[in-house]
Amino acid sequence: MIKLYYAPHTCSLASHIALEEAGAEYSTVRIDFAANEQRTSEYLAINPKGRVPALVTDRGILTESPAMLAIIAQSFPQARLAPFDDPFAFAQVQAFNSYLCSTLHVAHAHHMRGHRWADDPSAIREMRRKVPEAVGACYDLIERDMLKGPWVIGDAYTICDPYLFTFAQWIEDDGIDPSRIPRVIDHRNRMSTRKTVRKAIADELR
Amino acid sequence: MIKLYYAPHTCSLASHIALEEAGAEYSTVRIDFAANEQRTSEYLAINPKGRVPALVTDRGILTESPAMLAIIAQSFPQARLAPFDDPFAFAQVQAFNSYLCSTLHVAHAHHMRGHRWADDPSAIREMRRKVPEAVGACYDLIERDMLKGPWVIGDAYTICDPYLFTFAQWIEDDGIDPSRIPRVIDHRNRMSTRKTVRKAIADELR
Repeated sequence: MIKLYYAPHTCSLASHIALEEAGAEYSTVRIDFAANEQRTSEYLAINPKGRVPALVTDRGILTESPAMLAIIAQSFPQARLAPFDDPFAFAQVQAFNSYLCSTLHVAHAHHMRGHRWADDPSAIREMRRKVPEAVGACYDLIERDMLKGPWVIGDAYTICDPYLFTFAQWIEDDGIDPSRIPRVIDHRNRMSTRKTVRKAIADELR
Repeated sequence: MIKLYYAPHTCSLASHIALEEAGAEYSTVRIDFAANEQRTSEYLAINPKGRVPALVTDRGILTESPAMLAIIAQSFPQARLAPFDDPFAFAQVQAFNSYLCSTLHVAHAHHMRGHRWADDPSAIREMRRKVPEAVGACYDLIERDMLKGPWVIGDAYTICDPYLFTFAQWIEDDGIDPSRIPRVIDHRNRMSTRKTVRKAIADELR
């Protein structure tokens, strides 16, 4: 059975929602960041990166949200979470998710995880100060050019939607005025009402 | 015909090599960063992100290296650049490339592009100071856990190989002692001798 290693308030929520959307049978294991569980030898044997998420499958372990979201979609084709019959459309899905992991998530990470790229406290403060600008620029691009509506790629709900929604949880914490990105907020609101989303969030905060 | 927008000494080299490996018919357009061509209205109409690479295909425009590499592989199946017949193996390819774009490339970008995440010159200097440590940690993980050998995923050459090779060009500039990561350097050396790689590099530096 599939097992998802997650931590609350992290990007693992995207895969958690996708598992719900897929109708998968799966279990979850919570990694306690406050206790530094992601650095234990037990967890490093599962994910040597010492981060969440990680997905244990009967084929092996997979990390990195875009790849995990893709294999969840592909393993449960009846849920139609990605356009696998059209390689170009699937590549567009992967391009969107790649932008989220490499640019939006990274801009956001300078808020709480600046220690990855600097040691000096004043540099870490300076990175944090610029988060609203750097993350805001990502959302402006998503709002204007990338979110087709009603779902990310258009009429079809895909694995792009829970991934965008996950980051959109943090818009206010990132210091961005939500009124500046009404289409992203409308997407977030519609996602929030889905039973799958509510269940995944409730499971994580339990 | 496929058209690749690229800039020398950037990650667009990975897609350029992949096009060569695929035996594709394609043309290239050089974007001059020194002249800030990536911010012209003409280029922003192609890629609103104002970055390279971008791939123009008869189905539309695609950005983000992991997605571009995947569509190149999928469009030229006879070149066998990715294991599309095995969704889990393909997800592993995507996981590797996702790590490169979201973690290794980002760590490297703090060397020259710290202005993305801070304005204060001393913070930008501090980020640059930490690059050998942050990038070095990525290469330690690749050396120990991710590079299966002889190619990234094992016996088969895939779209992971030109992508890793592209970043490996910058190992010395990133302040990393190459003797610390002999398997990565051996991979780089073997990649350097490939005719496809030599052609793509020569085209870009011409």
